[in-house]
Amino acid sequence: MSDALRVALLGCGVVGSQIVRLLHEQGDDLAARIGVPLELAGVAVRRPGKHPDIAADLLTTDAAALVARDDVDLVVEVIGGIEPVRTLLLAALAGGKSVVSANKALLAEDGATLHEAATKAGVDLYYEAAVAGAIPLLRPLRESLAGDRITRVIGIVNGTTNFVLSRMDATGAGFDEALAEATTLGYAEADATADIDGFDAAAKAAILAGLAFHTRVRASDVYREGIGEVTAADLSSAKAMGCTVKLLAICERTRAGDGVERVAVRVHPAMIPRTHPLAGVGDAFNAVFVEAEAAGSLMFYGRGAGGAPTASAVLGDLVAVARNRVNGSKGAGESSYAALPVQPMGEVATRYHVALDVSDEPGVLAAVAGTFAQHGVSIQTVRQEGRGDAATLVLVTHSATDAALSSTVDRLSGMQFVRRAASVMRVEGMSSDQDS
Amino acid sequence: MSDALRVALLGCGVVGSQIVRLLHEQGDDLAARIGVPLELAGVAVRRPGKHPDIAADLLTTDAAALVARDDVDLVVEVIGGIEPVRTLLLAALAGGKSVVSANKALLAEDGATLHEAATKAGVDLYYEAAVAGAIPLLRPLRESLAGDRITRVIGIVNGTTNFVLSRMDATGAGFDEALAEATTLGYAEADATADIDGFDAAAKAAILAGLAFHTRVRASDVYREGIGEVTAADLSSAKAMGCTVKLLAICERTRAGDGVERVAVRVHPAMIPRTHPLAGVGDAFNAVFVEAEAAGSLMFYGRGAGGAPTASAVLGDLVAVARNRVNGSKGAGESSYAALPVQPMGEVATRYHVALDVSDEPGVLAAVAGTFAQHGVSIQTVRQEGRGDAATLVLVTHSATDAALSSTVDRLSGMQFVRRAASVMRVEGMSSDQDS
Repeated sequence: MSDALRVALLGCGVVGSQIVRLLHEQGDDLAARIGVPLELAGVAVRRPGKHPDIAADLLTTDAAALVARDDVDLVVEVIGGIEPVRTLLLAALAGGKSVVSANKALLAEDGATLHEAATKAGVDLYYEAAVAGAIPLLRPLRESLAGDRITRVIGIVNGTTNFVLSRMDATGAGFDEALAEATTLGYAEADATADIDGFDAAAKAAILAGLAFHTRVRASDVYREGIGEVTAADLSSAKAMGCTVKLLAICERTRAGDGVERVAVRVHPAMIPRTHPLAGVGDAFNAVFVEAEAAGSLMFYGRGAGGAPTASAVLGDLVAVARNRVNGSKGAGESSYAALPVQPMGEVATRYHVALDVSDEPGVLAAVAGTFAQHGVSIQTVRQEGRGDAATLVLVTHSATDAALSSTVDRLSGMQFVRRAASVMRVEGMSSDQDS
Repeated sequence: MSDALRVALLGCGVVGSQIVRLLHEQGDDLAARIGVPLELAGVAVRRPGKHPDIAADLLTTDAAALVARDDVDLVVEVIGGIEPVRTLLLAALAGGKSVVSANKALLAEDGATLHEAATKAGVDLYYEAAVAGAIPLLRPLRESLAGDRITRVIGIVNGTTNFVLSRMDATGAGFDEALAEATTLGYAEADATADIDGFDAAAKAAILAGLAFHTRVRASDVYREGIGEVTAADLSSAKAMGCTVKLLAICERTRAGDGVERVAVRVHPAMIPRTHPLAGVGDAFNAVFVEAEAAGSLMFYGRGAGGAPTASAVLGDLVAVARNRVNGSKGAGESSYAALPVQPMGEVATRYHVALDVSDEPGVLAAVAGTFAQHGVSIQTVRQEGRGDAATLVLVTHSATDAALSSTVDRLSGMQFVRRAASVMRVEGMSSDQDS
């Protein structure tokens, strides 16, 4: 067998330690699949003393020096964050090393720069593990569906928020209580801001949209609402209409009145029918629907996080870039030729569920309905629940622009007979979703 | 833009006509993704008069001459069947043309010969469309999971049988009635033998097992039972225990008492719990579960057949082989290094549901239980339903070898107090599946 390909591993936490384990345990299989063995050249960590399982001469705190070594062929990065990782990976690529990364934040922030560096050096940049852990998703988007026209990607791509919302749904707990439980059980980090506020899901949505629509999309292009404002009342409203609440990442190809195609990318909590396949995705699982013109609807489901599942995705990429290296070839690079503009959220058409606590007096329903009509928002269903001198009006709208819906709700909230908007939330995945 | 890559299309039926349409409609996108345009060089059909939508000068009845033409770079085959296709594709590969095929029967019969020809010529042989239509499945197995150890693949891969079984489940209809409905609605061909008897699913199972376990598996290695013997009574028995019946393709990595790893590949109807995700897969949809050591459980779901979905998979492959051609590279070839032996079905461990109509007399249950014990088969549950002088005994076994279960049932059927075995069927996907 030919000479080994030598791998530099940057980072050795939950994922990195599983990569080291699997490289060791499955070494013979990986060698047979690649044609040459993979060999660990070094592991960059912050505190070498914390890694007694790894041979001491492999450990280094100097990641830059490791990446620059002539005897390193491939670089695997599982550190996360923007810097110093960007600098390290650009150096690796410039030095002719193919890179496998699990870094969603960096890819969503500055994937274009990394891709350009990879193209310039004629090496590979793969990052299947950056989105939805072990679920093969980026390769199917990039390759399997390369002959089709993807119209929509919608999925649950963050396990922490999915656990919290699942608990709120199951127990009626409020957000704080459910988050505390998630933290206790290890489903949420001590500082869960990136998950709860939707930053993690937004980065993944940017990556998915970029691949699906052959367009550069950055995290900052993604409309983002987290789940911090989701209340027990929202879950209860959702239940009353046969729905549950999920944090969804939604990437759509749209065509506005001007005939121009755009991409709309958003992350927000939404009510979805309990009969929708995404409604049943529990706890730390991820699931993503892809709709394409010829293929129809596809679903991908699996473990979206965790050391071993993420390591599986990293190793799949590592085998691919190693095979390419052995064959003197290179995988598909960035495809951003379509360069579609991003649609502002205000123009994105969604449906809304609105629950209003109102005074129970004559003319209220007419006034509310009139307000929706004034803003050009068509109502699909209204349900009134009386409670003494007060009542709750529950409305579900047809699809209308986000701007029209927002200003309708703003206007309603200012009306004298509206005591409060008890629940305002987008609705996705209902059968009449395609109306307009 | 560089010179076009020229494509020969062999066959122009339901799938081929969609390929022609998509090549035309999405030509600009495909060109941008590949780097050069794709151009149809010719279409081999049996009756040129039947294809008024295709330019007459592209049509030919001489597929062999088309494949041999110097101006053809890539060959797409959607004819199906073994010959003359094998001869045509071997000629194409030997002539340096990359091949994209949707031909499950040929790949499962003689994939090794085709792969060897592709390797020898340094060209690609891709066939994503051969299994589960539009669902990206072969590429994820071959590439995304190349760094993992797949232990099991279980799926619904035939739409016709799934439609028939879904109807039997929903309406209580017998097999003949449900098949007649499927034929009327276009879900079954006039001669549905290949579907009903499980040949189609067995070919797909062979392809899946080969990729999952890096081992050559042929259709003849696959244990196969169709759904022709499934009765309304089976569906009714399944319902009584919270199950439905599906035709499953199951590929497993096993390790017997001798410590030798083998692959077990089988297609047969089985009862699965209604709570199992595969139970909800209706009509013409396909779904496949993949279990891998590091990745855990993954599910892939989508349209398993039909012109446009299958064409989507073909075009994804076509873009891939065209990109490789442009880059002077080659995708991953066959991986059969593991060469695991195939486990005979008699040694495969499964669970069984057995419903026996028996005389309601003292000692019957003891005799039945004793018979199971004599054959080393452990019983998980027994339910007795009395009906006057007769009773039905419904037993579900723990996992035991197929040979032991079969001989138990043979023995029981011969016993004087057993009037008949009303339903005998394997059970999959129950929570205690991993017992032994």
